[in-house]
Amino acid sequence: MSGPAAPRVGVIGGGQLGRMLAQAGRELAIECVTLDPAPRSPASLVGPSIEADYDDRSALGALAQDVDVVTYEFENVPVDAASFVQTLRPVRPPPAALEAAQDRLAEKELFSTIGLGVPAYAPVDSVEGLRAAVESIGTPAVLKTRRLGYDGKGQAVIHDPLLAEDAWRSVGGVPCLLESFVEFEREVSIVAVRGATGEVAFYPVVENRHRAGILRRSRAPVAELDSDLQRDAETHALALMSALDYVGVLAIELFEVDGSLLGNEMAPRVHNSGHWTIEGAETSQFENHLRAVCGLPLGATDAIGVSAMVNLIGSMPDRAEVLAVPGAHLHDYEKEPRAERKVGHVTVRADDDAVLQQRLDAVLEIVGDGG
Amino acid sequence: MSGPAAPRVGVIGGGQLGRMLAQAGRELAIECVTLDPAPRSPASLVGPSIEADYDDRSALGALAQDVDVVTYEFENVPVDAASFVQTLRPVRPPPAALEAAQDRLAEKELFSTIGLGVPAYAPVDSVEGLRAAVESIGTPAVLKTRRLGYDGKGQAVIHDPLLAEDAWRSVGGVPCLLESFVEFEREVSIVAVRGATGEVAFYPVVENRHRAGILRRSRAPVAELDSDLQRDAETHALALMSALDYVGVLAIELFEVDGSLLGNEMAPRVHNSGHWTIEGAETSQFENHLRAVCGLPLGATDAIGVSAMVNLIGSMPDRAEVLAVPGAHLHDYEKEPRAERKVGHVTVRADDDAVLQQRLDAVLEIVGDGG
Repeated sequence: MSGPAAPRVGVIGGGQLGRMLAQAGRELAIECVTLDPAPRSPASLVGPSIEADYDDRSALGALAQDVDVVTYEFENVPVDAASFVQTLRPVRPPPAALEAAQDRLAEKELFSTIGLGVPAYAPVDSVEGLRAAVESIGTPAVLKTRRLGYDGKGQAVIHDPLLAEDAWRSVGGVPCLLESFVEFEREVSIVAVRGATGEVAFYPVVENRHRAGILRRSRAPVAELDSDLQRDAETHALALMSALDYVGVLAIELFEVDGSLLGNEMAPRVHNSGHWTIEGAETSQFENHLRAVCGLPLGATDAIGVSAMVNLIGSMPDRAEVLAVPGAHLHDYEKEPRAERKVGHVTVRADDDAVLQQRLDAVLEIVGDGG
Repeated sequence: MSGPAAPRVGVIGGGQLGRMLAQAGRELAIECVTLDPAPRSPASLVGPSIEADYDDRSALGALAQDVDVVTYEFENVPVDAASFVQTLRPVRPPPAALEAAQDRLAEKELFSTIGLGVPAYAPVDSVEGLRAAVESIGTPAVLKTRRLGYDGKGQAVIHDPLLAEDAWRSVGGVPCLLESFVEFEREVSIVAVRGATGEVAFYPVVENRHRAGILRRSRAPVAELDSDLQRDAETHALALMSALDYVGVLAIELFEVDGSLLGNEMAPRVHNSGHWTIEGAETSQFENHLRAVCGLPLGATDAIGVSAMVNLIGSMPDRAEVLAVPGAHLHDYEKEPRAERKVGHVTVRADDDAVLQQRLDAVLEIVGDGG
């Protein structure tokens, strides 16, 4: 009754996302080989790994030769590197998704193309261009570098048009986008997955709280999730995945404004706002990403009760204190403590909102409000 | 806010149980080091391991030196080896539990001591003794070797007193126990856990089906679980754990006869009938065993809906077929296929019995009725 041998998956990047992919794969005998420049990366502690730069062609070639399919855990993998790997093995999600995610201008244009509204924006290439953009968009506005932004890095909020030049200097004077500052009701996200045959599945929309540009916590599903909100988010995710001929997990961060959704950004990978799925959904985002990129059937994405995920930022809390909270699930990425670094997360799950809130409060009491 | 460093745990045995312990530990940054004589043991693929015999003192010493506490994944670890390790590091569960579990006579006497009824039995040391025991207990009866039985090995059913000598020869003429063959309604088991401070928790009683002495599947909780049955099982488990000053997960297999429970056997370790807890309970038996032996607070043992676990025996089914069943969770131990060998398991979970049955039927359609 035995089927084909288990696929092997190469993962560019060996942080906590690569680690959780490797852990999920192991149960299915899908071995993940990660590639990361850091010694003792989180993923290297749970499976085979290659220590090399993301653009090291010799290492990328060795990785590709060793596996059946290559994926990545972060969106700043050089597109050239992904395209090189694609000459050797399938790369999923497709490098076109990387290209769109790496450039905020391309991303906004893609969102507009598929009918997902976006905040007013303008490309900015000079301080003069920034002054003109501030004039046209108004304040407050957010200046964001077009490339290599993550966790709030490469961003500056402009409240006073006279301080535009300071903002320009603070982001390094590189090509940017100026965006209208959105007075959103909620920040939400959807994690979606598309299989190799075009099969799709969607997790419930979750609510996220950021501080200083870093995700602090998620609540799944979003409180008072209505079917319109879920349907709209799924429609946009489906359109994006179809446009990109996408395979794998895709996350889209959205602003909820007056009951409508505006696109903020997308991540062509497993996503921090989907970590709750390990305990809180029938199949985790990590397993579903691997199922997709390996051409296997997708797993059910139903939430099991309600969940809240709290990022552990900077350093790990006392293990015993966290584990004393009923239903607390601790994930330690085994990273060195460092300010503003995500070093782990805790998920609490419950059958109803009241119990969830008690458990979340107990966790926050220990770890602080989002680290 | 950081607490003490993560404990390291030595695990004697590196089969699937050691593997699942190591996987559960990794999330808490608890590194498990396994010791197993087999090359490429299931646990060796997920973390550090030592390839050595269970009674290799030099290897056991090296293991103990490398960790904070030592546990084991099977009950046939030589008591001498466990006692030796205990001179170097705490061994949990205590070696006294190993001693009781390794000798069916000691086990029966322990059950009786704590008030758990057992089938009629008699120790048997010779073919003449066997004839006398058959006379006194009647047929059908089961002849079981006192030591080293597992998965139905070392057992013979005696229907005809005239064939007692054949049974004696078939089990090798070693010290045995003759037990009355119990006409049970159901085979059930309880997985319990006791922490280092005496804190206890109990999973719901599950129903098990064996064939040819091997567990084929479990259903959690047992259908129509009543509070009396759960309470009785917990009472017995608590008494056993207290008597042994036990720390860790303990499994007790029981026969349900006319609404009462009779003790069949105990396993001082994580147990096959608790595999469903990975997806079907708030905290898995593997994580709870590690929490207990590391002196951490225990996790909640509540079932989340209803679950069924099917062992994969002999060889693995086609991965894609199994994953196409909604809610199917596949666990591949990465073992070489071999007749009657447990090579993996599938758990299906659902919110109600009807959906569970559909999913279980779909799995059984693919893998056969328990392999």
